[in-house]
Amino acid sequence: MQQEAVVADKMKDGITAPKGFRSAGIHCGIKRSRKDLALIVSNLPATAAAVFTLNKVQAAPVLISKKHLDESEFFRAIIVNSGNANACTGERGYKDAVTMANETAKVLGVRPEEIFVSSTGVIGEPLPIVKIINGIHQIAKQVDKSEYISTAEAIMTTDTFVKSTSSTFIIDGKEVSIGGIAKGSGMIHPNMATMLAFVTTDVAIEKNIFQNLLKNVCDRTFNRIVVDGDTSTNDMVIALANGASGIGPLLPATESYKIFEENLYQVMKKLSIDIVVDGEGATKLIEITVEGALSDEDATKTAKTIALSPLVKTAIHGEDANWGRIIAAVGYSGIDFDPDKFEIIINDVPILKQNYFVTMPIAEANKTLKPRNINLMIKLNMGSGTSTVWTCDFSEEYVKINGSYRT
Amino acid sequence: MQQEAVVADKMKDGITAPKGFRSAGIHCGIKRSRKDLALIVSNLPATAAAVFTLNKVQAAPVLISKKHLDESEFFRAIIVNSGNANACTGERGYKDAVTMANETAKVLGVRPEEIFVSSTGVIGEPLPIVKIINGIHQIAKQVDKSEYISTAEAIMTTDTFVKSTSSTFIIDGKEVSIGGIAKGSGMIHPNMATMLAFVTTDVAIEKNIFQNLLKNVCDRTFNRIVVDGDTSTNDMVIALANGASGIGPLLPATESYKIFEENLYQVMKKLSIDIVVDGEGATKLIEITVEGALSDEDATKTAKTIALSPLVKTAIHGEDANWGRIIAAVGYSGIDFDPDKFEIIINDVPILKQNYFVTMPIAEANKTLKPRNINLMIKLNMGSGTSTVWTCDFSEEYVKINGSYRT
Repeated sequence: MQQEAVVADKMKDGITAPKGFRSAGIHCGIKRSRKDLALIVSNLPATAAAVFTLNKVQAAPVLISKKHLDESEFFRAIIVNSGNANACTGERGYKDAVTMANETAKVLGVRPEEIFVSSTGVIGEPLPIVKIINGIHQIAKQVDKSEYISTAEAIMTTDTFVKSTSSTFIIDGKEVSIGGIAKGSGMIHPNMATMLAFVTTDVAIEKNIFQNLLKNVCDRTFNRIVVDGDTSTNDMVIALANGASGIGPLLPATESYKIFEENLYQVMKKLSIDIVVDGEGATKLIEITVEGALSDEDATKTAKTIALSPLVKTAIHGEDANWGRIIAAVGYSGIDFDPDKFEIIINDVPILKQNYFVTMPIAEANKTLKPRNINLMIKLNMGSGTSTVWTCDFSEEYVKINGSYRT
Repeated sequence: MQQEAVVADKMKDGITAPKGFRSAGIHCGIKRSRKDLALIVSNLPATAAAVFTLNKVQAAPVLISKKHLDESEFFRAIIVNSGNANACTGERGYKDAVTMANETAKVLGVRPEEIFVSSTGVIGEPLPIVKIINGIHQIAKQVDKSEYISTAEAIMTTDTFVKSTSSTFIIDGKEVSIGGIAKGSGMIHPNMATMLAFVTTDVAIEKNIFQNLLKNVCDRTFNRIVVDGDTSTNDMVIALANGASGIGPLLPATESYKIFEENLYQVMKKLSIDIVVDGEGATKLIEITVEGALSDEDATKTAKTIALSPLVKTAIHGEDANWGRIIAAVGYSGIDFDPDKFEIIINDVPILKQNYFVTMPIAEANKTLKPRNINLMIKLNMGSGTSTVWTCDFSEEYVKINGSYRT
């Protein structure tokens, strides 16, 4: 999708918008010429929260980062390489991930447990660890407030545009910021499929409280995006909070906390939608809202099943308002519903009303699918459960890109 | 895929190979010009077995056929239309399906409960029932032993070739036959996704025994094929057994029963693989065998997850031996396994051995994916559970076909 205008807007600040953060992105030699190493540093010790892939096969950097999250109370940096996932690489891979943490700690003068390690790229090939070590020594000299764009670039793989955003707002009369970058375009599915996101903020927030908050917001953002159903070995969301704004520690159920939560949601939602929009070969962003399910869980299950259906995704790509495919997808989602009560509204136009009442000829209904942004609303009229997920359409390009990823 | 040679072979007999069956396929006017109405008639009262879609949204013909299966001990015919699924058509759709059974019963001089009704095609549009009634009166005059090809043609929708096969074998010195036809190409998934299959045989077999047998063989054939994960509103497998061979009633655990079961398996497996080979835009048939799982159920779950992964299917299409995608798919399949014990063999060539030992450069491994028939063997080395499923690759054509189904 054409993203120039949007990208320009997103470029305004990013991961270094919050006070006390510096970052950089460089080329260290994993990829042929594009940037492949990123470093995000907090000037002050920061608390952290993280969500990791649920895939049973977990890459070495996931294992190390989980370990550090458990072992340490405060954190100083995230080191990320792209181009090689360091997954399915056995003992050597584990050692390489430890080396990445150790070298980063060394150049920053902190302990290895204060470092998070992240990798993304091809699975099953050993890391070019010497190049990465040299890169770590070089990048540590380049971290700066102004380098947020190069940082976002350095975590990209098949991404076609940079995903970077920030939000600055007021709590108790002081300026507070949240910044974020992400990568991910293909293989996106709830539960962290081949996507990375890093979030920084200058509030103070206690580690356990931060963890609950991040998990909760992830469930409503990164875990609500669906591209093709595959989940990956490497995915993680890591957030750092360094307190440099002077605000905090935030406590749940306070007004400050609610303001912070809402802004965190907006930042993570923006990054999530960016990932969907960059879905391989995507031409349309599809927001699927299910209302009237027996529970919110049922609503999410329904919305995700529709979002995963290749038949629905190809029909929307072809601008065919084929509601039979949508209702069939709901039928195999496993939820309880009454087909006679089913309603479909596309971009505010009711296409199908209860008792299978078709409101207009198919040629008319197809016109509702012309825009690039599609809002697909399903009303089940069973209860009050509701949910929204985001996905993209399925085009010929998707197959081309994924059939020749390494060639 | 090019299927000319294979088709010629399959044409040799079909649904009327068993004694005492006649059939026909005609154009009655649902489609513009292709055949769209099929009738299969048993000269003698036949017992029946059937497996129906598990989708919560069930088309009217599914409801009627289920009802008749429950109500009657013997059956005489199956009436099938293509081009219109009579699904999501409410009360009118139900009445139309009843009319199809009633009219067929009338022209054959039997009771409506002895008739199965089946439909496939577009969802949500009312049947042109007057055309179908006229068609039923016409087709009843044309049923003949020689019309098995036109019968198979008349149930096709997006199918690119006729799916028809038979097996003739000896039980107790007498000739016995099983014939079958099927339709299905896109949207194929275990549990009967948008596929129809009709099977005839001239053995005698009691209804309950036949039902258990058909269910069991379906679980190893039609429920082991995977195209894209969508399941549909209309799908069914119906089998008729009329005893015209003089053999039977067959009893479980006898030698005769085993011979019959094996031939039924071969007929249904052949139709299943035909459906996969005809997967929309398919260029390769992929047989996925999982060995060494903790249970057969785990093996099937693993094989199906791999078969459903768009990333694996596009990689195989691109002849990229991307074993990382395969292991990642197993990782999110939900089964218990040890990634270090994982092995991958493609067309008898070991690509990956235990402890992530890569046996050859990727360019060499890619060559194993050149043939049109791919045997992908996964060894989990955990236990003795095993399973085989069949699927096809995912090409640009798939998206083109499904994005413009109705245009």
